[in-house]
Amino acid sequence: MSNETVPAATIARIPNYLRVLSRLADQGKITVSSAELAQAAGVQSALLRRDLSWFGTFGTRGVGYDVTTLRASLGSHVGAAQSWPLVLIGAGNLGTALARQFSQPPFELAALLDVDPRIIGTKRAGITVQCQTTLSEVVATTGASIGVIATPPDTAQGTCDALVASGVVSILNFAPTLLQVPQGVLLRTVDLVQELQILAFHESHRAL
Amino acid sequence: MSNETVPAATIARIPNYLRVLSRLADQGKITVSSAELAQAAGVQSALLRRDLSWFGTFGTRGVGYDVTTLRASLGSHVGAAQSWPLVLIGAGNLGTALARQFSQPPFELAALLDVDPRIIGTKRAGITVQCQTTLSEVVATTGASIGVIATPPDTAQGTCDALVASGVVSILNFAPTLLQVPQGVLLRTVDLVQELQILAFHESHRAL
Repeated sequence: MSNETVPAATIARIPNYLRVLSRLADQGKITVSSAELAQAAGVQSALLRRDLSWFGTFGTRGVGYDVTTLRASLGSHVGAAQSWPLVLIGAGNLGTALARQFSQPPFELAALLDVDPRIIGTKRAGITVQCQTTLSEVVATTGASIGVIATPPDTAQGTCDALVASGVVSILNFAPTLLQVPQGVLLRTVDLVQELQILAFHESHRAL
Repeated sequence: MSNETVPAATIARIPNYLRVLSRLADQGKITVSSAELAQAAGVQSALLRRDLSWFGTFGTRGVGYDVTTLRASLGSHVGAAQSWPLVLIGAGNLGTALARQFSQPPFELAALLDVDPRIIGTKRAGITVQCQTTLSEVVATTGASIGVIATPPDTAQGTCDALVASGVVSILNFAPTLLQVPQGVLLRTVDLVQELQILAFHESHRAL
């Protein structure tokens, strides 16, 4: 099976099938009929069978699908289809903390970059910090589609521009500053101080 | 104005407005139009005006908002008029990054605590790390009403319980785990991985 041939709509339905299979496994079910699985997933039996046919033949006539086998097979396929290589820029305390949290499936920390020569070449969160000037190369070789910014605020816009220039179209910004991106680039900013301000707002109004 | 009446989404946008107003004040701007302020904050003008209407009428037709007045008024609502002593637990990479960002008015980092003897007594983000066993004492002497948890997930609940026992009633949790608090304690959890998942969700749906 090649990744290119499976319809995107089929891939999008796999997580739902997996969720149902996990629930069945938890309930101790060994086998499930295609009708039963389709109903639990909210799709037509014919569509379910067509979707699963992309990944091989798992069913036994009159018995149904083996829950464990089907779950493992689909899981491995969807894992490959949904892996997200990330490039994280800024290997200070925040970047290191994020690198540790973001190194879990389906996310994959492809590279951790910084401009500080004292940090470049050292290991942070189990990965060797590379020089930020290699960004375009890193994005090209790893196919990273998500960039995470954990730089100081004054260099965040330049970093963001470099990510966009490298072809990254989804950016998660942790620097406490507003960034500008061209149309077509997805930007999400997480303001840690804002979370504290929201808590303080609730606290101050509770106290009144 | 009562806490119940202001929508949570409005509250969440106030810190963003404050940041834009601070920048305008730094640039020497005296007044700002609602269109200008809305654009800088990345929201629609109508939404901005509706948000600000919860806190009174600040604009003058044809002139716009007085930057200083609006900033002071919104600031007082999010608790900027008073000082907020915080106690932050966990002085690893995440805790150190948070300590640095949370050491700005109206917040005041009263104490940074950890259990690791290798860290206790060292300086992180300009403050000496104290032993976590001093928590109750620290809360009593500093009057800290907000506790920030930046511990590993497996010790977060114990830390949360200790904060509550010390009399802290507002808790901001950065550990990737669900915490239980008694009624009357305000708990807000920031899941950093979830931010990445949301970005990936949007990215995958755009790709289809």
